[in-house]
Amino acid sequence: MAKELTSRETDYAKWYNDLVIKADLAENSGVRGCMVIKPYGYSIWEKIQAELDRKFKETGHVNAYFPLFIPKSYLSKEAAHVEGFAKECAVVTHYRLKNSPDKKGVVVDEEAKLEEELIVRPTSETIIWDTYKNWIQSYRDLPLLINQWANVVRWEMRTRLFLRTAEFLWQEGHTAHATREEAIAEAEQMLNVYADFVENFMAIPVIKGVKSPNERFAGAEETYCIEAMMQDGKALQAGTSHFLGQNFAKAFDVKFANREGREEYVWATSWGVSTRLIGALIMTHSDDNGLVLPPKLAPIQVVIVPIYRGKEDFENVDVVARGIFENLKKAGITVKYDDRDTHKPGWKFNEYELKGVPIRIAIGPKDVENNQVEIARRDTLQKFTVSQIGLTDYIKILLEEIQQNIFEKARKFRDSMITRADTWDEFVQILETKGGFISAHWDGTPETEEKIKELTKATIRCIPLDAQPEEGKCILTGKPSSKRVFFARAY
Amino acid sequence: MAKELTSRETDYAKWYNDLVIKADLAENSGVRGCMVIKPYGYSIWEKIQAELDRKFKETGHVNAYFPLFIPKSYLSKEAAHVEGFAKECAVVTHYRLKNSPDKKGVVVDEEAKLEEELIVRPTSETIIWDTYKNWIQSYRDLPLLINQWANVVRWEMRTRLFLRTAEFLWQEGHTAHATREEAIAEAEQMLNVYADFVENFMAIPVIKGVKSPNERFAGAEETYCIEAMMQDGKALQAGTSHFLGQNFAKAFDVKFANREGREEYVWATSWGVSTRLIGALIMTHSDDNGLVLPPKLAPIQVVIVPIYRGKEDFENVDVVARGIFENLKKAGITVKYDDRDTHKPGWKFNEYELKGVPIRIAIGPKDVENNQVEIARRDTLQKFTVSQIGLTDYIKILLEEIQQNIFEKARKFRDSMITRADTWDEFVQILETKGGFISAHWDGTPETEEKIKELTKATIRCIPLDAQPEEGKCILTGKPSSKRVFFARAY
Ligand SMILES: [Zn+2]
Ligand SMILES: [Zn+2]
Repeated sequence: MAKELTSRETDYAKWYNDLVIKADLAENSGVRGCMVIKPYGYSIWEKIQAELDRKFKETGHVNAYFPLFIPKSYLSKEAAHVEGFAKECAVVTHYRLKNSPDKKGVVVDEEAKLEEELIVRPTSETIIWDTYKNWIQSYRDLPLLINQWANVVRWEMRTRLFLRTAEFLWQEGHTAHATREEAIAEAEQMLNVYADFVENFMAIPVIKGVKSPNERFAGAEETYCIEAMMQDGKALQAGTSHFLGQNFAKAFDVKFANREGREEYVWATSWGVSTRLIGALIMTHSDDNGLVLPPKLAPIQVVIVPIYRGKEDFENVDVVARGIFENLKKAGITVKYDDRDTHKPGWKFNEYELKGVPIRIAIGPKDVENNQVEIARRDTLQKFTVSQIGLTDYIKILLEEIQQNIFEKARKFRDSMITRADTWDEFVQILETKGGFISAHWDGTPETEEKIKELTKATIRCIPLDAQPEEGKCILTGKPSSKRVFFARAY
Repeated sequence: MAKELTSRETDYAKWYNDLVIKADLAENSGVRGCMVIKPYGYSIWEKIQAELDRKFKETGHVNAYFPLFIPKSYLSKEAAHVEGFAKECAVVTHYRLKNSPDKKGVVVDEEAKLEEELIVRPTSETIIWDTYKNWIQSYRDLPLLINQWANVVRWEMRTRLFLRTAEFLWQEGHTAHATREEAIAEAEQMLNVYADFVENFMAIPVIKGVKSPNERFAGAEETYCIEAMMQDGKALQAGTSHFLGQNFAKAFDVKFANREGREEYVWATSWGVSTRLIGALIMTHSDDNGLVLPPKLAPIQVVIVPIYRGKEDFENVDVVARGIFENLKKAGITVKYDDRDTHKPGWKFNEYELKGVPIRIAIGPKDVENNQVEIARRDTLQKFTVSQIGLTDYIKILLEEIQQNIFEKARKFRDSMITRADTWDEFVQILETKGGFISAHWDGTPETEEKIKELTKATIRCIPLDAQPEEGKCILTGKPSSKRVFFARAY
């Protein structure tokens, strides 16, 4: 129950973990680093998937499916990519088990050793570009606008539910284009699709930017990203979109005949978001009572709880509650009527608060008499009485208001967590006290970024797309800088 | 192009493979036994997923996600299950690669060897029941009605696109119940959900039955199945639903306190269908010109092709074609208007025939003049002229008719492929000439079934649920039998 949640102030990390477990979102499995996504958590992922998939198709993309396994040699074909991804990954070496000599179990059959090891995909650029080679001959075959919904594996040593797990679910878009300009436009378009979704659907405000070379995707020429701010002052990368130049086309020899009949290498992008978004969702909005879900993503938008003593009470309340339920359902609202007699109203109130249901409607005999209901808003924890007349329209508007309010609250908080620093002392002090994004000058070198990371654990989260030119001096080295970048400690 | 398809008569297996490739459904990847599902093929899978998911939710199920990896020791916990599944599977033994000494590639880091090997799931009973152990304490926690959409891996030596691949996509339902009766009812319900979907959506007639012990799922007490008949006279198992008894509950020690407070083992079911269904779809309906898709599953239900010479012609045709397109779209029909000037009408006709689009509408200047269009039905290959007036309603009805016709055609064929055999000579002769299902008596022993398989490659596909009691003698041994079962060679 909600009461047993550790408070954010006491221990933010524990609060997060407790909440994920107690709200039935996910749990650790018997396999190190792999989570079980429970039905309530998965239903949030389904909502994310449905809306993103709609947006991808609206922008001309189609889905396909590529193999889970990648031959080891593929990873080595793109030099930067192998450095970034061929390290911590699951390696399949054998394809058969046999009974153990003692007959009590099974052992790996050493005779069934693969000639070439297979890697469980940490991301699919290599296997996909190996495939695209056969699909692309002429400019007429371009662009290829393909997305994949899949599981991927990265062998993480320190894992946290949703935020960093060995296996996670995601989508990965992989597009091929005839020109540099078109590929860049695609990467930027998908960044905007992500930003639009994360802000307007998940109610999480983000900063759009590009990564510094140190933080770029392995094999990309430019990594665009959206960065969100969590309640503990740490940043979280919510999505990335990469302009890959011709790196993968060259690595896999993918050329096309252009309109003039000349052969050219193809231009590429890739872009992805993952179940990590659920971690961002939780850490942006939730409170010490539990989850707070924006209505557009809530698996249950409205819950109706009848209050009664005895059978007669119940019958009076039930008929009204059921009518309200039907009306809300007809209006397209996802509503649950919890008429279980195995749990008391107080228990239910706690439960739905913990699970972040945006609106709770309670109806007792007195409400029936007065033609009213009691409404509780999860976002503000306010309670008030409203008339049953026009209730459906009222709820519709209230859901929109809650969606907006949750976003505004997060935006105000995020804005309050952007601080300028002009000296190293300021920089360190902000980090140690307040956290958040620090807008500061940087001399543009990887060495300085690396040094700052070593000293403070803060990294450049992004160079904001809307950064204004401004003469300044690097926070660490004092060397000249032409614009501010955003530093933060991050998930 | 369609013309290059091998005919079914010449080489059925080659026809199938050609068709899958040429219709852009799937292809082999650089990873042995793993396929790439191309966008057109994947869009059929998306339609299958959407409708099944709707049916699962309608019957009270929710989705969740469990780990890709299964610790090796889990597989050994259920004795029959390990015999069936712990053999040909992908084994993860290491979790890191490092640069090779020659710096030209990567090699497995022998220091990163897992203490216990992980198996890439061939099916998820073990990892799921290991999880359910923590979710189930009391009868109040039951039933658990959970489904998972996932990829699984079974290391097959001989693979065929969609029909048998090392990695495939599927859904697997895993339910937990308080009583034997409830679990059996669930397994039967899901068999009916599958049969309803496969018959009414995919237009594939099926026989419902139970498997003989030899063909049962490893760990099941009863395996229900739906069996379909392909055009070459071979059967194909289209879906299975298993009553697992208390086997997995005992293997993973999953008990619940019943209403009287006594501890009992939980009862289980599991059920699944996979991308194999797409293989069944192709082999049931398609012809020597290409795919034939039932309207309910077709990614494109209607295609409009303009016929014209020169710009003026095009403009006259285009305005009418566009109007029809908009009307069909508004009516909820998935319609494509192919106005590309890079391809000739004849090329387009072949292309959409190959891809199985149920209805093609062609419009030329003469049609515009006469207020008509030319319709071509993919299922019957008939062409006819109809008025533009009332066209949308006409198309709606025609789509339904095509759906029905495709099913009826397949049903008649399937019925014609059920033959009774009362002597061994008849049995062998039918198998060698006509193929199909053979309805014959069997003495009920695994030994006889095994012997028949050795002699003829035919197996018992199922004991039909509607089998009538009938005194008879086993086709092989002459021993007494109380009802007929269905034998066939199968995919
Ligand atoms: Zn950024
Ligand atoms: Zn059967």
